[in-house]
Amino acid sequence: MPAQTHPIRIDLSDFFAEHVTAKQLQKARPEGKRALKALEKDEKAGRMDFTKLPDDKKLLDASVKLARKMKSGVTDVVICGIGGSSLGFLAVAEALLHPRHNALPDSKRKVPRFHLLDNADADTVAAVLDIINPSKTLVVVISKSGSGGETIANFMVVLERLVKHHKGSLPGALKQVVAITDPENGALRRFVNEHKVASLPVPPGVGGRFSVLTPVGIFPAALLGIKVADLLAGAGAMLKRCHRSDPLVNPAMTTALALDLHCKAGRPITVFMPYADSLWRTADWFRQLWAESLGKATDNHGHRVHVGMTPMAALGATDQHSQVQLYAEGPDDKTYIFLRTAAKTKVSIPKPRFEKDAYGFLGGSTLDTLLNIEGDATQAALKTFGRPTMRIDMHQTTAHNLGQVFMFLEMVTAGVAALWDIDAYDQPGVELGKLLTKYNMGVESAGEQYVDEYGGIKVKEIKPKHGISRDDPLVF
Amino acid sequence: MPAQTHPIRIDLSDFFAEHVTAKQLQKARPEGKRALKALEKDEKAGRMDFTKLPDDKKLLDASVKLARKMKSGVTDVVICGIGGSSLGFLAVAEALLHPRHNALPDSKRKVPRFHLLDNADADTVAAVLDIINPSKTLVVVISKSGSGGETIANFMVVLERLVKHHKGSLPGALKQVVAITDPENGALRRFVNEHKVASLPVPPGVGGRFSVLTPVGIFPAALLGIKVADLLAGAGAMLKRCHRSDPLVNPAMTTALALDLHCKAGRPITVFMPYADSLWRTADWFRQLWAESLGKATDNHGHRVHVGMTPMAALGATDQHSQVQLYAEGPDDKTYIFLRTAAKTKVSIPKPRFEKDAYGFLGGSTLDTLLNIEGDATQAALKTFGRPTMRIDMHQTTAHNLGQVFMFLEMVTAGVAALWDIDAYDQPGVELGKLLTKYNMGVESAGEQYVDEYGGIKVKEIKPKHGISRDDPLVF
Repeated sequence: MPAQTHPIRIDLSDFFAEHVTAKQLQKARPEGKRALKALEKDEKAGRMDFTKLPDDKKLLDASVKLARKMKSGVTDVVICGIGGSSLGFLAVAEALLHPRHNALPDSKRKVPRFHLLDNADADTVAAVLDIINPSKTLVVVISKSGSGGETIANFMVVLERLVKHHKGSLPGALKQVVAITDPENGALRRFVNEHKVASLPVPPGVGGRFSVLTPVGIFPAALLGIKVADLLAGAGAMLKRCHRSDPLVNPAMTTALALDLHCKAGRPITVFMPYADSLWRTADWFRQLWAESLGKATDNHGHRVHVGMTPMAALGATDQHSQVQLYAEGPDDKTYIFLRTAAKTKVSIPKPRFEKDAYGFLGGSTLDTLLNIEGDATQAALKTFGRPTMRIDMHQTTAHNLGQVFMFLEMVTAGVAALWDIDAYDQPGVELGKLLTKYNMGVESAGEQYVDEYGGIKVKEIKPKHGISRDDPLVF
Repeated sequence: MPAQTHPIRIDLSDFFAEHVTAKQLQKARPEGKRALKALEKDEKAGRMDFTKLPDDKKLLDASVKLARKMKSGVTDVVICGIGGSSLGFLAVAEALLHPRHNALPDSKRKVPRFHLLDNADADTVAAVLDIINPSKTLVVVISKSGSGGETIANFMVVLERLVKHHKGSLPGALKQVVAITDPENGALRRFVNEHKVASLPVPPGVGGRFSVLTPVGIFPAALLGIKVADLLAGAGAMLKRCHRSDPLVNPAMTTALALDLHCKAGRPITVFMPYADSLWRTADWFRQLWAESLGKATDNHGHRVHVGMTPMAALGATDQHSQVQLYAEGPDDKTYIFLRTAAKTKVSIPKPRFEKDAYGFLGGSTLDTLLNIEGDATQAALKTFGRPTMRIDMHQTTAHNLGQVFMFLEMVTAGVAALWDIDAYDQPGVELGKLLTKYNMGVESAGEQYVDEYGGIKVKEIKPKHGISRDDPLVF
């Protein structure tokens, strides 16, 4: 049994297929070297501050201390956050808590339940308000910019419930609030300062999708009793491995180079497939990291490129019965990253009490053995069909190992961006949707903005179609 | 407010983009006619028996009756099923139950909690066993073939718990079991017959991913108080619309033709994006339908084709903060299906108590208005970026409307398969993984099978690699 601090294992030996050979990877070494140099420069220039987080004990201590202070008497934590302000925490919580955390009796759970509000979904918000006790609820509102419409709307709804509980007293309600936002800027920070609300900072140099190791992910995890220091230690250990200067000895740059080769060879879809229910949200976190960081219209020199790799999350073994038919027989346009671990619990499969011929092979084994044999079998089958597969072995789902996975994938992402010479840290493509939303919510000034390269139209001239007639031959 | 039986609205008027014009769609009419003829033939030949389900009152009644009989005194339903044996039910349950169904107090819920075991995941299975009361638990085991390894393994584990509760009595435990499987064949059916276990049939002509309207989806939904007859009625109403003989008046065939044109024009990725937490599992259900039905190595004449469209599930508005950057700026290789509805609950956003300049536009609105404006804005923004979007409006999330959505998507899938001249109803690509699993679980005979076109190797000659040395330069 490996120690908790065992390095995770990254195996690319089956990651080749038609058009992408080990030899080509060797040939790409100079490109990898250039990319590593670019990353070094970016780190020094403060553009990759997520790499500073493993050593930022001050930030860690601030989260842990505040969590200790705020959690007493709390039965429910409501977290308002979306995208980069929720996916990292969710990955951590799902990986490391009991799989039915909220359903456990209090005596077994010992830490609060949690409820994430990560959508402007009235039914979900109402349902959460149905089941929490406002006198014992802590609300955590997370928005780096302080301007996320859904997050703030949800926060206002939940806060109103607390204010009502406090008989109309805003200061009373705000004692049950923690805000995580920019240390200086934005409306949420102004609010926090004015009303003396408990708060933690998001370092300005760390973007949302790289923020899991800041208070954004660490504070709510600490509230729930997760060993957050181990997450940082794991990430730090991996960072060392990903700082190696030979690109083909550096696991992140080797992976980035291979993925780049596959993308150029017609495999732009990246399937991320953990074999454990508890790692499903890690795949979801990766989806954002990969899509937002690499999906870009222009490169660093302003050239129109429209690059990107499309992440797909799949869950083993479940999605063997949903997606693997396509993976095995469909177009050869995907790469496959298997994320493997061991179950925390041993569940024996009993000898069958019936149909021994059909079911006998299951009896006497364990569920975890079955799951891991299925993972091996699926990878081997895809290899047989000529599909490129790589594999990350976590050994066990611990905070330390999860921290390693986070940092590895962040460095792979940064590596591909460096190879492509694009900015991994912005997201200009979502701006138009945000402005359209604001304009249609009544903010006139938003309608005047965004006169851009796409035809030079103003936001207010882009009309969402409402209720086009069924007379249109294309409306059924 | 539209009536419950209002037809859902399917809007393809923004579903064009570079290389795919309305004119081309017109030109494809003869191809659409041929495909509709092929579907008619398939229906008559009994290859599309999912179209018979809306009128199969006998099958519906059998589910409803058995549900009524079995649910008395039951607090927890454990469902063992995977892929086509779970995704349809899950879509129905999530769409139509309270969003925190299991967390509600019994007095508010009134029907049992449910727990789905759809993976060979020891931690999840152990967690579910942690929280159920074996004396009041009903176990539903669902496997059409009766040979699903994960499903049977989970069933054996849960059954053992019941047997223990019944002090070793198998007949006692089996009173708390319902099996849903083939009416005649397979080990599960033999077991059911021998031990007189309560059971329901899966019609032999309905494949797993098309089985949501059979007892596979209907029985567990009926146990939880869902209006299952409405699902069938909605599906039946949609089927009529999808039987129209002019392909461009037929919503399913028009959609199939447009998706086929896009696929040929370099857009093989199909993004399915509901705007409601409660429809996330409908997207998951669609993922299987689309991937397994269309991802095929050979066509109906045995020619090697390797076709398929890759489904991606995305959730609005949440994934605007995760995927939309890629959709807007990345490669133009996707089509977008928006699924829209209205919330069941009205949640007002209060006037802000702080930062009125920044947050004032939210106050006085509702969460559902915000969500729908975001959906409109995202679709309009993608259109502005030249991306093809279509839209399904459910109006409200009712059983009738969900039934319409299911049948529409099933007929679109069948339509594309007819256009491509492939078999939508088989899944030969998963066989090798299953055989490898069996062989590595100790079934020697599985190792002798599968000598196929991929190099003519036997299963036992395909060795999953275990613990390759870290000396390999591609292992880190």
